[in-house]
Amino acid sequence: MPKTSKTRIYIDGSLACDSQLVLSPDLAHYLLSVMRLSGGEHILAFDGHSGEYECELQILGKRSAAVKILSKTRDFVATPDIRLLFAPLKKDCTDFVIEKAVELGVRAIVPIITEHSISDKIKIERWRAQATEAAEQSRRVDIPSIAESVTLSKFIAAYNPARTLYFMDETGSGRPAAQVFQNAPAPADFLIGPEGGFSDSELKLLRSQPFARAVSLGPRILRAETAAIAALSCWQSLSGDWQ
Amino acid sequence: MPKTSKTRIYIDGSLACDSQLVLSPDLAHYLLSVMRLSGGEHILAFDGHSGEYECELQILGKRSAAVKILSKTRDFVATPDIRLLFAPLKKDCTDFVIEKAVELGVRAIVPIITEHSISDKIKIERWRAQATEAAEQSRRVDIPSIAESVTLSKFIAAYNPARTLYFMDETGSGRPAAQVFQNAPAPADFLIGPEGGFSDSELKLLRSQPFARAVSLGPRILRAETAAIAALSCWQSLSGDWQ
Repeated sequence: MPKTSKTRIYIDGSLACDSQLVLSPDLAHYLLSVMRLSGGEHILAFDGHSGEYECELQILGKRSAAVKILSKTRDFVATPDIRLLFAPLKKDCTDFVIEKAVELGVRAIVPIITEHSISDKIKIERWRAQATEAAEQSRRVDIPSIAESVTLSKFIAAYNPARTLYFMDETGSGRPAAQVFQNAPAPADFLIGPEGGFSDSELKLLRSQPFARAVSLGPRILRAETAAIAALSCWQSLSGDWQ
Repeated sequence: MPKTSKTRIYIDGSLACDSQLVLSPDLAHYLLSVMRLSGGEHILAFDGHSGEYECELQILGKRSAAVKILSKTRDFVATPDIRLLFAPLKKDCTDFVIEKAVELGVRAIVPIITEHSISDKIKIERWRAQATEAAEQSRRVDIPSIAESVTLSKFIAAYNPARTLYFMDETGSGRPAAQVFQNAPAPADFLIGPEGGFSDSELKLLRSQPFARAVSLGPRILRAETAAIAALSCWQSLSGDWQ
């Protein structure tokens, strides 16, 4: 019986049973040289729109490989239509927030530039690679998207009022998370301010929007990455796909 | 008017208004050489049992300092009686879990050794220093304790059945977090397995305890540190001090 590797990969293409698909040079390199898999080994693959498949790895040459798609292991299911909007942090913290947001099932991540943002360097390609890796490891069958960065004022001006924008209000004047997130269906967005907090004019702008809700996450000071994970977890448990 | 620094420190002692307290050499070094504060500057200090105070820094010598306690800024309030029990992870992840658990208001952290634990190196003193730093930064007025490490089986055998033990069940057979954590008052404990998951015999042991409840955190695979933050956030929002 062939060994089934725990390796799980995203393939940018369309997978279907009984077909063969030649892998990109990057993916072939990853499977053959990084993961050191051999021909005939089984892996799991998903394409982001049709589900997950068990595949057999086939070696075509020293740096070339394909997968033969054997059977469908899971149907496609989209994560809820929620987005995380956050002001980029120091590099390690940003990496961390992306990984956790993907595990917690966001459909998209939007880098938001605020007045107190400490960084406006958005490495979109790097973020996309990290989001894909986190999707592979958290057993998602979809790939979260990373949007282009946008300033908070432009984002608010273009906001679709059919969605709800939850912003984490560090001033303590938001309502408790469990109250706000009860019966709060998607589509929804979760906005986390930078370490320095929102400016007074940003808070005024947010509070005057009919689609925005201020949320309080308790009496302690949470770092931005903690607030992001806490908000997503609370919403998923009360109104998302953890129910 | 004296400059009030944002510096906030824990002092292992007893603070009271209108008294003076000589700082330990470590604390004096931190304030004078690391934070580069000057005599006369104001800082916030808490002692872990009587609240928070505004203090004036007084220089006694090149490496020696005291604080004059001016006024009480906050009364003491304990965090809920909850503990995080987790199997030590790789160094960075462990650091991270400690910081986040403190921000999320645990009263204690207990390192648990499970069959699949990847590490049993518990550096208690390092963990305590990290927990103290996180308490200073999250504006807590109490200091979470770090227990000695214990194996899961010993921990279960000595468990106080007046508490409730919530364990994150990756097999999918737990009840959804929002159901379990609704009306679930402290004292409570939150047990997160290692990256490799609980062993079959550990799951059997946990499931047979009348004080234990299996919790599901949704359909995706969460890393251990994500599960810890998610569980604590959901509980705090539903039955803890975020209400």
